[in-house]
This record gives sequence, C-alpha cells and structure tokens, in this order.
Amino acid sequence: MQHGDLIIKADYLLTMEDDLTVIKNGAVAVKGKNIVKAGTSEEISKEYTSEKIIGGQGRVVFPGLVNTHTHAAMVYLRGIADDIPLQEWLEKHIWPVEGKFLTSEFVADAVELACLEMLKAGVTTYADMYFYEDTAGKKLEKIGMRGVLGAGVIDFPSMYAQSADDYFRSAENLINNWKGSELVTPCVAPHATYTCGPENYKRARELAEKYDIPIHTHLSETQWEVSEIQRRYGKTPVEYLDEIGILSERLFAAHCVWLTDKDIEILAKKRVGVAHCIESNLKLASGIAPVPKMLKAGVKVAFGTDGAASNNDLSILGEMSTAAKVHKAISEDPTVLNSKTALLMATRYGAEILGLGDKVGSLEQGKLADLVIANLEKPHLTPIYDIYSHITYCMRPSDIETVIVNGKIVVDAGRLTTMDEEEILNKARGWQEKIKGSSD
Amino acid sequence: MQHGDLIIKADYLLTMEDDLTVIKNGAVAVKGKNIVKAGTSEEISKEYTSEKIIGGQGRVVFPGLVNTHTHAAMVYLRGIADDIPLQEWLEKHIWPVEGKFLTSEFVADAVELACLEMLKAGVTTYADMYFYEDTAGKKLEKIGMRGVLGAGVIDFPSMYAQSADDYFRSAENLINNWKGSELVTPCVAPHATYTCGPENYKRARELAEKYDIPIHTHLSETQWEVSEIQRRYGKTPVEYLDEIGILSERLFAAHCVWLTDKDIEILAKKRVGVAHCIESNLKLASGIAPVPKMLKAGVKVAFGTDGAASNNDLSILGEMSTAAKVHKAISEDPTVLNSKTALLMATRYGAEILGLGDKVGSLEQGKLADLVIANLEKPHLTPIYDIYSHITYCMRPSDIETVIVNGKIVVDAGRLTTMDEEEILNKARGWQEKIKGSSD
Repeated sequence: MQHGDLIIKADYLLTMEDDLTVIKNGAVAVKGKNIVKAGTSEEISKEYTSEKIIGGQGRVVFPGLVNTHTHAAMVYLRGIADDIPLQEWLEKHIWPVEGKFLTSEFVADAVELACLEMLKAGVTTYADMYFYEDTAGKKLEKIGMRGVLGAGVIDFPSMYAQSADDYFRSAENLINNWKGSELVTPCVAPHATYTCGPENYKRARELAEKYDIPIHTHLSETQWEVSEIQRRYGKTPVEYLDEIGILSERLFAAHCVWLTDKDIEILAKKRVGVAHCIESNLKLASGIAPVPKMLKAGVKVAFGTDGAASNNDLSILGEMSTAAKVHKAISEDPTVLNSKTALLMATRYGAEILGLGDKVGSLEQGKLADLVIANLEKPHLTPIYDIYSHITYCMRPSDIETVIVNGKIVVDAGRLTTMDEEEILNKARGWQEKIKGSSD
Repeated sequence: MQHGDLIIKADYLLTMEDDLTVIKNGAVAVKGKNIVKAGTSEEISKEYTSEKIIGGQGRVVFPGLVNTHTHAAMVYLRGIADDIPLQEWLEKHIWPVEGKFLTSEFVADAVELACLEMLKAGVTTYADMYFYEDTAGKKLEKIGMRGVLGAGVIDFPSMYAQSADDYFRSAENLINNWKGSELVTPCVAPHATYTCGPENYKRARELAEKYDIPIHTHLSETQWEVSEIQRRYGKTPVEYLDEIGILSERLFAAHCVWLTDKDIEILAKKRVGVAHCIESNLKLASGIAPVPKMLKAGVKVAFGTDGAASNNDLSILGEMSTAAKVHKAISEDPTVLNSKTALLMATRYGAEILGLGDKVGSLEQGKLADLVIANLEKPHLTPIYDIYSHITYCMRPSDIETVIVNGKIVVDAGRLTTMDEEEILNKARGWQEKIKGSSD
C-alpha cells in the first residue's frame, strides 16, 4: 500500500483521456504535484492510502478548465462601456482608460481579481496577452494559478514601451525570468496582423524558436481586419501569416472568425491552435467563427473568454454552454459541438494548444494535478442522466467547490485559500473610484 | 410616520418604471402584499419605519424575473437526451418517457423542483403549458410562487385526455378552480398550429373570452412548421391564426422564430406578446427569432426558458445574457438589445404579455411586491460601472440572495423558506431512478 498526499473521490470521474469514458465512483490519487493514479475508487483504495480524502458523494471531478485567450488585467474595465460600436468602444472608452491607468501597479492588482474570478469558476490555466506580464507572473505564483503569459508587441509606442526594441527587450526579460517556472510559461504575443508588420512577427518567431516558447496572437477577428490585410498585402490574414512563416504548432491564435475554406486548410495543415472566444465575438458583433468546420478539418479549437471588458466575465463554463448552443443554430444541426466535445475543448485541447498537453488537460498518471471538484447536489443539476450534458449546459461557477492546481488546493469550499478575497475586492473598488473619477 | 411590514434597502434600486432611472441608495417599503413606496432610502426613511429592514450595502433590488414560456414539469427530463435531431429527440426520448410517466403525481413532484430552481434564480412568475395544471397550482400556493398555468390542448388523445371535450373540460375546471386566486392565473394553451386545428383554437378563444383569461401557444418555432402550415392552409402560421381570429392582446406566443415582415406587422398590430426562448431555439437548432426587428415594429417581446429538457436550465438571467449577445452578432450591430432592454424584457414586458402588467413587473406604489435582492460583492461583479450591464452580462443565479413574492420572503440567504430543499431533490432522485430504469 502506497501513501498519497491527497485522494479525491467522486460519483463521476472524467479523466478526459482519449475515449472520454465516465468512471463512476472514481478516485484520483495525488502525490506532491502529480497525479499518481486515476481510476475507480475501488482500484485506488487497493493501492493508495491518505490522511486527506476529499470530494465524495454528489460530486464530479474533471480536469481544470483552460482559458486560452484573455487580457486578465482588463477585468478592471468590466462593463465600463457596452452595447456600442467597436471603434467607439475602443477609442472613446478602452484606450483612454488604458492610456491613463495602465501601469505595472494596475496590472498587479487587476490580475489578482482576474485569477480569483477564474479559479472560483474552475479555470486553472489561462493564456494572457497584455503588458507588464512579469508583474502578472509574480501574482500567479502567489495565488497558485497556471498561466501562459504573452508579452504584447505592437508596431507603435505605448506607455509600456517606446519602440520595437523595447517591446522585445521586455519579452526577452519575461522569458529569462520565467523559463523553467512551474506555473508560469512565458510567451511572446504580437498583437494582430493589422498592428504588427512582418518585421515584428518575424522577430517574435525568432524569439519563440530561440527559447522554445509559444506565440500568441489575434487573427481574423473582424471583417474589417480581413479587408484591411487584403488591402495591405493582397492576402487573407491567415495567408499573410503563412507567407511570412509564422504558422506552426507553436502559434495559438485568438478568434479566427472570418476564414475562407483555404484558411481553414492552412490552419489544419500547419497545426495552429485556435482560441474560440464566442461570447466576446457575439457581444462586439464581430461574427461567429466556423468552429464545426474547423474541428472537422482537424484544427484544434479551445475556448477563450477574451478580456472581461468585452464578455463580461471570465467563465469557461459560460463559453462552453454558449458555443455548444450557438453553433447548433448557425449550422442548422443540433448534433454539432456536443457536450463531450465542449468539455474536451475546455480541458485537453486547451492545454494542447498552449503547448502544455504533456503536463495538464487530462487526469492521468504522471500529469500535474490540475483539477476541479464540482457539487452536483443542486436544483439546476437534478436529476442527472448525462454528466457531460450537465457540465456543458447546466453547470455554473458557483457549483465549483474545490480547485487544485499543481497538487495544491487553491479553492476550498468555494473560497480562495492563498489570498484574502475581501482584500482583492477592496483594491478593485479603489481602482473603480479612480477610473470613474477620471471620466466624470 | 407610517409602519411598513418590510423595508428593503440597496445601493441600486431599479424600479423598471418608464424612464429606467437607477436610484442610488434606494429603498422599497412593503405593507402586506403591496409596495407602498419605492424611492431613495432617505425618502422612505422619512415616511416609513419597520422592524424588518433587509438588503443594504453591496446589494441591488429589481423586480422579480418573469419566465414567459416553460413546461415546468419537464425539469425531470433535464439532459435526458441532447445533441440529437429534433424528431429523434421527441420521438425516441421525450414522448416515450412522457407516455410512461406523465401523471398527476409526476407533475406534482416535478413542479416543486422547477419552482425551487426558478425562485433561487430570481424568477418570481412563470407561464406554463402542460397537463395537470391543477396539481401545479396547488404546488405554487404551497411554495409561494406566481404562475400563469396553461391547460394544454391538442387534437389527439393522450394519457391526460381522450378527446377535445376532455381537454376543454379540464381547462374549464382549471379556470373555475383558480379564477380569482392571488398567485395562480389559469390559462388555456392550444399547443401549436400543427397540433391544433382551427376548431380547437376557436374553442380556446371562446373559453378565454368567456372567463377573461390569457391564451398561451407555440408559434412559428421551426421551418418545418411554417412549410407544414403553408401546405395545409396556404398561409404562414401567423396569418393562419390571424384569419381564424386568435390574435389579440390576450395571446402570448412562444418562439416566433420564422416570421415574414408581414407576420411581424400583424403581431404588432394585434398586440400579441412574444415569449423569446433563445437558448432552446439555439440548442434544438430551430433558428434565431428576429427580436430586434420585432421590438422595432412595436411587438412586446419577453423571455422564456422553454422546458429544461431543451435548455437545460430555467434561468432567465441566462436567457438575457445569451439573447443580448447573440442578437448583436446576428444583426451585425453591437448596439441592439442593450442591457436596459434585456432587463425590461425580463421584468415589465414579461408581466405585461402575461396580462399581469397592472400587478407586477415593476416596483411602484400599489403593485404587488415581487422582487429580488442580489449580492454584488462578488469577484465577477467587481468593479461596477453600470448596474444594468452587470445584471445582463455578469449576474448569475447564485448572486440572488433574497426573493419576495406577493410580499412574502420565499428565498432568504439563497435558501427556500417555504419547503424543504433536500426533500425536493430527493423526490427528483427517486423519479430519476425510475425513469433511468425504464430506458435501460
């Protein structure tokens, strides 16, 4: 009999391994940071013993959810402007506030709130694109969350950097500071085809190859972007990035709303990962990405919330439910994006497109223990006939009871264990007053 | 100084009266079943005193949400079959289970679970279409929820009735039993244009006129229905119901997905209310109703969840968020269905299309006290710039703290006060085992 640091039991265990079998009365044994075994409760009991056994009756266990595209610090701009056209939203609201408030201190405080919200909603990993990611990295270590932090690069100066050299210096610093970290994966994030010319994309690729890290970008989000890139380069955004050699398994691209069939073929062939941000795309009226077509063509698609300013929350459960429903109506086919596929996209596919597929995304021996326990004993989750259906169509962040990242319990009975929740909310309220005051 | 039975205070009070003003530091005074005054906390304090003051800091108060179309008892079939074509869903799953289990006892137990779920999600009134509504009415009185209960009518026999006379006898009994009830409004519910011929629609109208009650029907839900009615009568479903004299302010029609411009004109002119069921329509791949067009034409549109078998929950907050986002993308216009409109549809418009507009739907002197208090002190609701935006895009059922129906607190600190929650869940689990067993 071996000793485990922690054993998690549940009525339903979803490992999200290849066959997507539901293990009834399942258990997971954790030792240190790792899963040492996942199987039926009976199997685990025969091999492992532990002083700490959690979960149990009326519970389901599945891998931590992965948010593959966000701008975490923008959580401080949640709901600051809605229901208005994209350009007005950006130019009159988002950019002016960022221009006035975007500092390392802003990011430090805002990231705490974003992580708090995500962890309580069962998100254990997020991929970010923003500035001051070094600051974000420190917060991730403190709060105990996993992140792929993308140092933003754009062709023009900002409060954060004055030149391309500046942006890339920051990106290289980020990489050197975090390469080898357990929780933080550094990443380079050229913003988009319309804000980064070929030079900066190529520099990003070189940096990524030199340090073997992922590249994070926005791609084909709006019809305007597609016409603009057509006008500049005579190509679709996907063809353009392909031509300059950016497309590879290393790249994960957010949005991919406006794609030709040829674009989809290219994405599949070059094994680019796609972060589908349905709620943001709907809310900004950007359009609806051809996800069933991409999946069919073999493109790996996962979910992203985008920033809270355009969503307006950071819940992957919400993205799953919205996507699974909307694509049925758009495809005029109720069989597309079924509930198993939705959870697969939210877990294993998410980890894979971020280059973390060997570490997290499913519950199997040797992987890091990133997982959630949800409470099924709720009116809206009763009765139960199909656990995948319930997670995709009914489950809410408030059903998430326990969250484990890297073997550590970071949410227990729905409360963050690593930092004081009230303090995080109070900081946010302080910033809210400053930001409100500035626009009055 | 007058005495109130209850005073509710909040940082934000949304009365949903005509101008949709946000009252900061607001309060509502309740005496018996009625609102005696709503205004600023200062105004209320000058006129009213009470031993019971609830709500307070970090809270928002708004009218109870109205679910204008559901089949409450189908909550027992939640998630029994998903991600399959409509006909297969109905014929292989829903109808066989209903055929085997649909009794008065089934409805009695299932309605408890549906009411529990809805009340905890801030829904204070629902409009139903099903069978054994007498049983449902008794449950509503026990649990303390408001309902417009529609006795179903179809052209063919069922477990519940053998003939048209049978269906209408049941409907008339329902009316006689509940006419004048405070919580229950009886209603007649001819199922749909493809399941009820003109005779039964006309009998329903006569009954409704005789007793001055509403009519509830399904209308233009699928493309198949539109072609079928074209084939049978050479008209669209809307034109057909217009021709036989069914369209009036008395009628509220669920779905209205497939409408011609002329249909929309007719619905506006005849003042028919529409129950928009976006999540069900998406999930069954039925299509997306032209809501912005209907609103522009002056049609009153509210939200419905449809049954939990096709949604899969009974949350109006979910419908608001989904609808506000989806219509933006479909219209390619981020300004449509803004957050104020969403809450208006979910409250005042909902009450109005059910014929309850003079009683509930907004918080004003003399109306019945149906209202909710939500807790804003949550990560996903922080910071706050616009309270309407937060309710539409971020609020979740778990934020609903207190629910008052007819002046009585039925949910307190998130728990039902009128019945035992655990007992309701246990009954549901018993039925789940029977239903599962029957299909094994």
